[in-house]
Amino acid sequence: VDGGLSRRALFGGGAGLGLAALAPAAATARPRPWPAAKAPSMAGVPFEPRDTVRVGVIGLGARGMGVLPLFLDVPHVTVPAVCDLDPQRAADAARLVEQAGQPSPARYTAGDWDFQRLCARDDLDLVYVATPWEWHHPMALSALRHGKHVGVECPLATTMDDLWDLVDASEVARRHCMQLENVCYGPLELRLLRMVHEGVFGELVHGAGAYQHDLRASLFSPTRYYHQWRRAWHTRLRGNLYPTHGLGPIAAYMDVNRGDRLARLVSMETPSLGLEAYRREHVPPGDPLWTEKYLDGDMNMSVIQTAKGRLIRLEHNVCDPRPYSRVNMIAGTKGIFEGFPSRVYLEPDATDHVWRGIDQYTRYDHWLTKDVNTPRHPDDDGANYVMVWRLVQTMRLGLPPDITVYDSATWSAPGPLSRESLARGGAPVEFPDFTRGHWRDPVPGLDSVKPA
Amino acid sequence: VDGGLSRRALFGGGAGLGLAALAPAAATARPRPWPAAKAPSMAGVPFEPRDTVRVGVIGLGARGMGVLPLFLDVPHVTVPAVCDLDPQRAADAARLVEQAGQPSPARYTAGDWDFQRLCARDDLDLVYVATPWEWHHPMALSALRHGKHVGVECPLATTMDDLWDLVDASEVARRHCMQLENVCYGPLELRLLRMVHEGVFGELVHGAGAYQHDLRASLFSPTRYYHQWRRAWHTRLRGNLYPTHGLGPIAAYMDVNRGDRLARLVSMETPSLGLEAYRREHVPPGDPLWTEKYLDGDMNMSVIQTAKGRLIRLEHNVCDPRPYSRVNMIAGTKGIFEGFPSRVYLEPDATDHVWRGIDQYTRYDHWLTKDVNTPRHPDDDGANYVMVWRLVQTMRLGLPPDITVYDSATWSAPGPLSRESLARGGAPVEFPDFTRGHWRDPVPGLDSVKPA
Repeated sequence: VDGGLSRRALFGGGAGLGLAALAPAAATARPRPWPAAKAPSMAGVPFEPRDTVRVGVIGLGARGMGVLPLFLDVPHVTVPAVCDLDPQRAADAARLVEQAGQPSPARYTAGDWDFQRLCARDDLDLVYVATPWEWHHPMALSALRHGKHVGVECPLATTMDDLWDLVDASEVARRHCMQLENVCYGPLELRLLRMVHEGVFGELVHGAGAYQHDLRASLFSPTRYYHQWRRAWHTRLRGNLYPTHGLGPIAAYMDVNRGDRLARLVSMETPSLGLEAYRREHVPPGDPLWTEKYLDGDMNMSVIQTAKGRLIRLEHNVCDPRPYSRVNMIAGTKGIFEGFPSRVYLEPDATDHVWRGIDQYTRYDHWLTKDVNTPRHPDDDGANYVMVWRLVQTMRLGLPPDITVYDSATWSAPGPLSRESLARGGAPVEFPDFTRGHWRDPVPGLDSVKPA
Repeated sequence: VDGGLSRRALFGGGAGLGLAALAPAAATARPRPWPAAKAPSMAGVPFEPRDTVRVGVIGLGARGMGVLPLFLDVPHVTVPAVCDLDPQRAADAARLVEQAGQPSPARYTAGDWDFQRLCARDDLDLVYVATPWEWHHPMALSALRHGKHVGVECPLATTMDDLWDLVDASEVARRHCMQLENVCYGPLELRLLRMVHEGVFGELVHGAGAYQHDLRASLFSPTRYYHQWRRAWHTRLRGNLYPTHGLGPIAAYMDVNRGDRLARLVSMETPSLGLEAYRREHVPPGDPLWTEKYLDGDMNMSVIQTAKGRLIRLEHNVCDPRPYSRVNMIAGTKGIFEGFPSRVYLEPDATDHVWRGIDQYTRYDHWLTKDVNTPRHPDDDGANYVMVWRLVQTMRLGLPPDITVYDSATWSAPGPLSRESLARGGAPVEFPDFTRGHWRDPVPGLDSVKPA
């Protein structure tokens, strides 16, 4: 299963990026019905309690090196092993671990598949995967098959087959496979989650999420993404390449996989214009970059309907100039919140058709925000640290994880589903029920109670 | 053609509103191909010049009585005739005309079809229709067949057959049939139109418009809408009931019917929850209102793709609490504007991922804003007066109208098209080309040059 994928084939090495030689990812989902379960559900299954959480880190790029210090900041975490293709990055990571007072970690830097040796160690509880998207599936699969829980950067995987594979592998291995969706742990997202669940918004009607992030300079940077893997995706396929930041929080508000489920999706997409325009301005004629052809449209707009009939608008645009936004909108029969910038209107407080600030609702703050989200890392809203801290807490206390493998697959599925809808001219496509019928079960989620 | 529709049948008169007896409007569009032309296009056809514009007004409710004084404020306008079912309203309107120093107008108040006698007069240049939506089509048709130009409140008509009928009738009669879409004449919308056409946004990628207006109190008011006609629509059918305020400005930015055209639409809709929740709170048990069943979903979300591949998100929600918004978003390869609240980000002025105010771009203001939009009517942004003033100007000087019958039908079509898509489970439906192949022609539009 782990064979056949080579970083050399993926990234090339000579003139240009060799992108034209890449086979496109599967454009259609596997035929319905979806695969039958091979083992019982993992929803609600608690971790085995343990005193120390031993973490192996695969991928030491910008994201991995950003999250590693957060793991090291959480008490009772050790990092016995790290992995990257680049020995220098592994050395840098090892130094961070040593600076935290821990033994120098084992380093796995012997090529594309050395991560399998990390996964095979017998002194790890969790594998953390922060590599280019195409490697999430084989690395998570290897971790599960070696009996490790695994936390994966966004998205969990990029094809429907791979998502189902990870659901199956998690169930068979009896180990959790979790999308580490940091946005869900933001203080604002957690406050809104509490407000929704307290009924403040009334009966929910619709929501919206997005990943609108002008990444043009990063995508064209020679150093920002290893061998510029992220721009390569824009040459391979269309659709929503990065759905989970937008969808995760909205799905949590709507109790998706805990009372409601995503039922169908339609998707439309504009032509690809932004990267082309950026290249015209910034890349000299004759540069090998000019051999690339960008396929992914600037704006992918999908609409998802839930089993209860609610709508979620989901957008993706990383190729045009604009301020960052995840939209983060939720609305019901009692009012509405919209983000970027934050504004709220809720009856009975508001009856005058005028937006208000969200700060008057701090009384709904999640216990994680109040207890854990101290300003340790001033360049973000604390979500990353809270996410890591809470994951370690659930593993130490023997609680179920906040984010199930079903959530992880559901939040990532708009990638392949949007491609399928686009290939069919915008036709609605069935959203798979990764829970296989358990979506009404009261499974613990992000709106957790503080453990006694 | 004008027969068969009775206000008594539409509104009932006894217990409740008799809404259950109403036949639903056609849920599917006429079969493709669309009807062949019976006469040449009206796009770009100038009005016959005239010194005075003689206006007959049909419908003297809140909207008609709001616009009548604007007509009377414009020099060289006379109002020889008014029409309403209610003699008191006609008397009130007549007094307004007299107060403007004009002869008392003829009053048509003799029942449902008395408007036909107004249309048959030989001393009118323009008929203005401000009645419930179901009457727009028969009244506009009557005006055209009696050789009058006609301006119609939003939407132009509610079924695809009726929209095609009005296109055909306008072409055969050689008279203009215009959606009086006031929002298009707002100072902000006109400024953005000028900016887009100057290339400030680069190549256009996507836009969004909406009618998000919490109308619950008005919809349930016993007096706000004549026999509560507007709430009745929510008992009849699903879909975007009121698309033109959101779509008109975006279509203008994108030069729809002047270089691009709307090609297809998908639509999804939530259940109807808001009116039901409002009724539970405000209507006592046993009231006849409890016999009503609300069909139109709270949030209708449609996505339209143009021939050039651009996307327009179009939303309708009048049944849930929220501040008013038309969204009014337009984005291209150089930047983005979003409304409600207004914010803009345009390269090269902006490179820091931070929103800016739109006031720094007043240099792009439309000549109509600078010359005509004096603060006469402080309760709006002046759009209504500018619209009426400009319509009169084009009629007096013998210019083509800013808004063609093709624009009018295009902006109204998401009503029936969204219903068709919903009936087909969200499938994409073909957007008709009301111009019948002339959509690339350089037809004068809202971005007019000031006449010499």
